[in-house]
Amino acid sequence: MNVAGRAYRSIWPIESGSVAVIDQRRLPHEFVVAQLDTWEQAASAIHSMQVRGAPLIGATAAYGVALAMNQFERGDASGLGADAAAFLERTCEALLATRPTAVNLRWALQRMRRVLAAAMPDQRAVAAWREAAAICDEDVALNRAIGEHGLALLRGIAERKGSVQVLTHCNAGWLATVDGGTALAPVYAAFDSGIDVHVWVSETRPRNQGAALTCWELAQHGVAHTLIADNAAGLLLRRGQADMVLVGADRVTRDGDVCNKIGTYLKALAAHDCGVPFYAAVPSPTIDWHIDATDIVIEEREAAEVLRTSGRTATGAMQEVNIAPPATRAANFAFDVTPARLVSGLITERGVCAATLGGIGALFADINA
Amino acid sequence: MNVAGRAYRSIWPIESGSVAVIDQRRLPHEFVVAQLDTWEQAASAIHSMQVRGAPLIGATAAYGVALAMNQFERGDASGLGADAAAFLERTCEALLATRPTAVNLRWALQRMRRVLAAAMPDQRAVAAWREAAAICDEDVALNRAIGEHGLALLRGIAERKGSVQVLTHCNAGWLATVDGGTALAPVYAAFDSGIDVHVWVSETRPRNQGAALTCWELAQHGVAHTLIADNAAGLLLRRGQADMVLVGADRVTRDGDVCNKIGTYLKALAAHDCGVPFYAAVPSPTIDWHIDATDIVIEEREAAEVLRTSGRTATGAMQEVNIAPPATRAANFAFDVTPARLVSGLITERGVCAATLGGIGALFADINA
Repeated sequence: MNVAGRAYRSIWPIESGSVAVIDQRRLPHEFVVAQLDTWEQAASAIHSMQVRGAPLIGATAAYGVALAMNQFERGDASGLGADAAAFLERTCEALLATRPTAVNLRWALQRMRRVLAAAMPDQRAVAAWREAAAICDEDVALNRAIGEHGLALLRGIAERKGSVQVLTHCNAGWLATVDGGTALAPVYAAFDSGIDVHVWVSETRPRNQGAALTCWELAQHGVAHTLIADNAAGLLLRRGQADMVLVGADRVTRDGDVCNKIGTYLKALAAHDCGVPFYAAVPSPTIDWHIDATDIVIEEREAAEVLRTSGRTATGAMQEVNIAPPATRAANFAFDVTPARLVSGLITERGVCAATLGGIGALFADINA
Repeated sequence: MNVAGRAYRSIWPIESGSVAVIDQRRLPHEFVVAQLDTWEQAASAIHSMQVRGAPLIGATAAYGVALAMNQFERGDASGLGADAAAFLERTCEALLATRPTAVNLRWALQRMRRVLAAAMPDQRAVAAWREAAAICDEDVALNRAIGEHGLALLRGIAERKGSVQVLTHCNAGWLATVDGGTALAPVYAAFDSGIDVHVWVSETRPRNQGAALTCWELAQHGVAHTLIADNAAGLLLRRGQADMVLVGADRVTRDGDVCNKIGTYLKALAAHDCGVPFYAAVPSPTIDWHIDATDIVIEEREAAEVLRTSGRTATGAMQEVNIAPPATRAANFAFDVTPARLVSGLITERGVCAATLGGIGALFADINA
């Protein structure tokens, strides 16, 4: 996607054998490209949310493994032993531990492990870089397909109403993926097809990914949008001001339960109560075939994210401010689970399906086999 | 209630013929008492949310009328003419226009008008001050009764479970009233009775009344509490971590629909979906006997409240920060309406009733007559 008219992905390899990412903690106030030279830096980028979004987390972990292979070849695998398989195992474990909820992380690491297990020792680094690049290219292709399938839904609404109002939550745009976005892929596809589309952006406390990232990338692409407080989604839906709710996902169970950014469940409830369709855009690496909703580990992050907000002052400086009294205790759950019964459908790279075992299974019988 | 051990109300007359209020825009960072000398300042205090909360808005408007009577007697009613009745009418209209949603404002002004219409001309100022004080004292009594009726609900839970977890939204504590609070009255009553009570405080974007005011006043009273992002209420309820949701109201229809701070509807939906009781604490001046939910005017406030947040920096300075890209458009709806079907009951000064025409009517047949 474009930033000030120049095409970017959210992650890409650079010639020195390192990896470049857009530092998402600095957006929308500053556009900064950060360089990751080691797998430890890749792990830190995921953990600190320099990169975030389930698909991008997976891609970053894959490049983390590639960086680790470089480090191993250079003899720079400090403290992690000289055995390649053991080193890889420990690296993958550490990368997996960076964030517990998004399943794409596990998926990408399993894929890297499988490829490296089959590679000749002197081909491991090359194979790792190639596989990480393949994961990235495939992510872009998955998102393009999601965009096309979702476009049909938006086009249907536009044909009836003349325009489409989409309510989204958090950032499931191109910044959350390698490129193209999941939930925003159909929005971009609609915009690019000339459909009159407007997006209501839920700010997504406590980290404000809606306000900071979704507003920023929609503005870069020229898509009309309006920011709302998370609290406002219910009124908006009651008033019929949104035609559909469209979100991404961090993990979807085989039964169609959607684990996504905290607050998604509330929007799904409101959409259901108001008769507005609620869709999750779900590339297949986000589907977890082996888990029930109750077993999903919900990440709890530090209280400071709730107690403080950061932004830019009128003079342009970045500043963090405390919004609560000094001794306040806060709880910070990062995700919730929307039961499948509230989900109108899943927009996958293979088409739109019901959020049910049967619906998902029919599209992905080969993967689930 | 106590502030640093000293008893305060949120509004009180002072000897000079002025009115004192706690400046709620400065909390929790600074405790500042502001002085209102004119009805224009009272109107501005309501409009700027120096004071807020449906009952306190009503009380402030009542004192605004009293201040106006002083101004009229001093011949200081600039530009508003020399006719007392016309002056009163125009003052009341201006006070009523400060905020459109809370019905207590209209209720208090009607009551002031009625009293002043019956007063002898030279007794008007005295009557106004007396009536404003009566409105304040009655508010305190209403809230005490709400606290007692609500206490029975909390005690029932505590007897079964050993402790009570309450989820609240915005600030319906003593700061939202003259004293005692509406939704928090039962919490304080429970705490004072030795019941083990813990409050989950929803931060309440965009103005953060939960984080700033509810956390502050609960801390002053020593009630255990934890701040959460508004988005987290759904997960919390799904996990059974709250035994009840308890909120205030800005206007309740005769059919039991509850208009309250934006985001209340989302919590009611989640409570309903999770089988957790949802109560609104409603003093009778908050009941609007003459309106349907669809006719309630939902205040829209300035976009800046969504685009910016203010707080205290690590060095102690107050600072406002922009959280969105510079050109972002925002919508800022201040209230939503929770349909009666999602409301387990209304806690009024006369007892707990069903959120229905029959339930409310049975308790308040005399008022509605």
